[in-house]
Amino acid sequence: MTCVRFECQHVCARTGGRAGLLHTPHGSFETPLFMPVGTQATVKGVMPRDLLDLGAGIVLSNTYHLVLRPGAETVAALGGLHRMMDWPRGLLTDSGGFQVFSLQGRRKVTDEGVEFASHIDGSRHLFTAESVMAAQQAIGADIIMAFDECSEAGADYTRAARAMERTHAWAKRCVAAHEGHDTQALFAICQGGMYEDLRCESAQAIAALDTPGVAIGGLSVGEDADTMCAMLDVVRPHLPQDKPRYLMGVGTPDYLLHAVKRGVDMFDCVLPTRTARTGCALVGGERLNLRQARYARETGPVDEKCRCPACQRFSRGYIHHLVRQKEMLGATLLSLHNIAHLLDFCKTMRAAIFADKLDEVIPGVI
Amino acid sequence: MTCVRFECQHVCARTGGRAGLLHTPHGSFETPLFMPVGTQATVKGVMPRDLLDLGAGIVLSNTYHLVLRPGAETVAALGGLHRMMDWPRGLLTDSGGFQVFSLQGRRKVTDEGVEFASHIDGSRHLFTAESVMAAQQAIGADIIMAFDECSEAGADYTRAARAMERTHAWAKRCVAAHEGHDTQALFAICQGGMYEDLRCESAQAIAALDTPGVAIGGLSVGEDADTMCAMLDVVRPHLPQDKPRYLMGVGTPDYLLHAVKRGVDMFDCVLPTRTARTGCALVGGERLNLRQARYARETGPVDEKCRCPACQRFSRGYIHHLVRQKEMLGATLLSLHNIAHLLDFCKTMRAAIFADKLDEVIPGVI
Repeated sequence: MTCVRFECQHVCARTGGRAGLLHTPHGSFETPLFMPVGTQATVKGVMPRDLLDLGAGIVLSNTYHLVLRPGAETVAALGGLHRMMDWPRGLLTDSGGFQVFSLQGRRKVTDEGVEFASHIDGSRHLFTAESVMAAQQAIGADIIMAFDECSEAGADYTRAARAMERTHAWAKRCVAAHEGHDTQALFAICQGGMYEDLRCESAQAIAALDTPGVAIGGLSVGEDADTMCAMLDVVRPHLPQDKPRYLMGVGTPDYLLHAVKRGVDMFDCVLPTRTARTGCALVGGERLNLRQARYARETGPVDEKCRCPACQRFSRGYIHHLVRQKEMLGATLLSLHNIAHLLDFCKTMRAAIFADKLDEVIPGVI
Repeated sequence: MTCVRFECQHVCARTGGRAGLLHTPHGSFETPLFMPVGTQATVKGVMPRDLLDLGAGIVLSNTYHLVLRPGAETVAALGGLHRMMDWPRGLLTDSGGFQVFSLQGRRKVTDEGVEFASHIDGSRHLFTAESVMAAQQAIGADIIMAFDECSEAGADYTRAARAMERTHAWAKRCVAAHEGHDTQALFAICQGGMYEDLRCESAQAIAALDTPGVAIGGLSVGEDADTMCAMLDVVRPHLPQDKPRYLMGVGTPDYLLHAVKRGVDMFDCVLPTRTARTGCALVGGERLNLRQARYARETGPVDEKCRCPACQRFSRGYIHHLVRQKEMLGATLLSLHNIAHLLDFCKTMRAAIFADKLDEVIPGVI
């Protein structure tokens, strides 16, 4: 029996979008599920208690960043990631694959793994399937990810095929290295660039590993929505029905909706917190830039419909002032709002799935 | 009947330190009272709700900063300072005197007022007794401060005397300009540099204005503790017994204790939040620099004795990590801790006053 399990509650009759429950050792969470990102073991600017109050279920943290600082062994010494960051609900760590491949010119990929220079101090590191599993086991999230090679958005066929094959080989090594670790669930990742036959092959190979969940990597890397949707359509029939499906690094309400319509259950993205730190609020499918002078004396909330503390207690005018003056509270309030917005948009999609009306949902309208 | 009133509950038999209640339109607060500083209408990095949970009573905000950004009229348009920053308890604004005199080389003082260039964009402004009162009336704090001239720590006798005389003349103009504004209490400020006769003269002149509270300005500007204590001893017999006494810009636990022993009731300082942003925690009279590598794997709290959320829920090791990685949450948690520490140190002094043992209190030991 795996420690993470997906329970499908309803499939939208018109779109095939799924509503379910993701059961983990730290609680059961409703899907579609948006996971806020806590890169360095903290969702930037947000107190864990406030994130709990918003109803967040799972937080994602980055193995690459945690291995560099404070180090996986230090996380373990501080009681593991849940204890260290005081997060009582679900945690997921990625494998670091995406980050190390982003270190263009600072990394060398072989079948063994990826050797790279830290973006912080240039120190040399080697990530392998086995080392990444060991790190994630020390960190202790509920869900951990297989080490994968993510090809660039414009990668040619040969390049994408090779990355996919490495991803499959590494996924098998991750499964072997995770044998017997029953308190964490390993999700394997399918790749294949923007090539339908590779995506199909990868989905089948990953499904065959029979991990408790599957992820779709290498999308939302700059391609247009139609291309992403085409790739999701290709992999859909090959992914196991009874497992959760996680689309990595997505994102915006419109992309979330595209993916949920195509049977995806889980998402993560830095969008809500990163845009907050630039003074932007997600409202009804739009981005409001609260830095603009027009908001200076607006007494109403960022979003009339929103139940987050920023909208319940503060005016646009005040948040404008905070953002203009670079006050931390501005980023904090907008982060809370943007996370609440994506969580609530997931609730909207979920309700629409139960009503068999997912096709009527408008991106960003809660 | 004034809207702010001091009720003395006990005087320490050994030191003369006072424990009381400060009654304001937004609640009654125990003294000795430490007021956290929210320079730009936000205590940096701290959610108002968390400050409430700590038990903070009055927050100080700076008229100079608010007049420049977002402007006193904008604060009024956003419902006044309480509504704008969602702070339901007491608020105090200073007069801007201290800030404009700090603009060395960018300001010109006359009997009329102070003309200065904004530190933000160089724009020219004139602060007078009347304009500062109008600004504070628009901002809407419970307690507002008279416009004063603060002489430098090393000011000679002539300079200090002249600043004192201007302070007295401006205080009278402030009283006149505040006539009829019954929902805010005006406190006048005594000056006089480090000269005993001037301090004595100033205390008498300020006491004669019969404002609902009196403040002691121009101390804690670089002089040693003995000098500050001597000045407090000089003014003490001349300040009204039935009014609250506020020592501006103090500060550290040892200075708080010196002043409480000399009959002071209220304090403000940026120390707890500013030191927090450098990674420092106030613990038992010491400052711990959480950046130091020795804390990296410490699983215990910043302060075993502390009841703040940082100490109740997080380890030194985690806060070390946050501080090292410049994560906002590090500054937030240490700000909460440092404010809690000073609030709790005030509680310790208050309990000792009731027990007639204020002389036994050790600075920073709660």
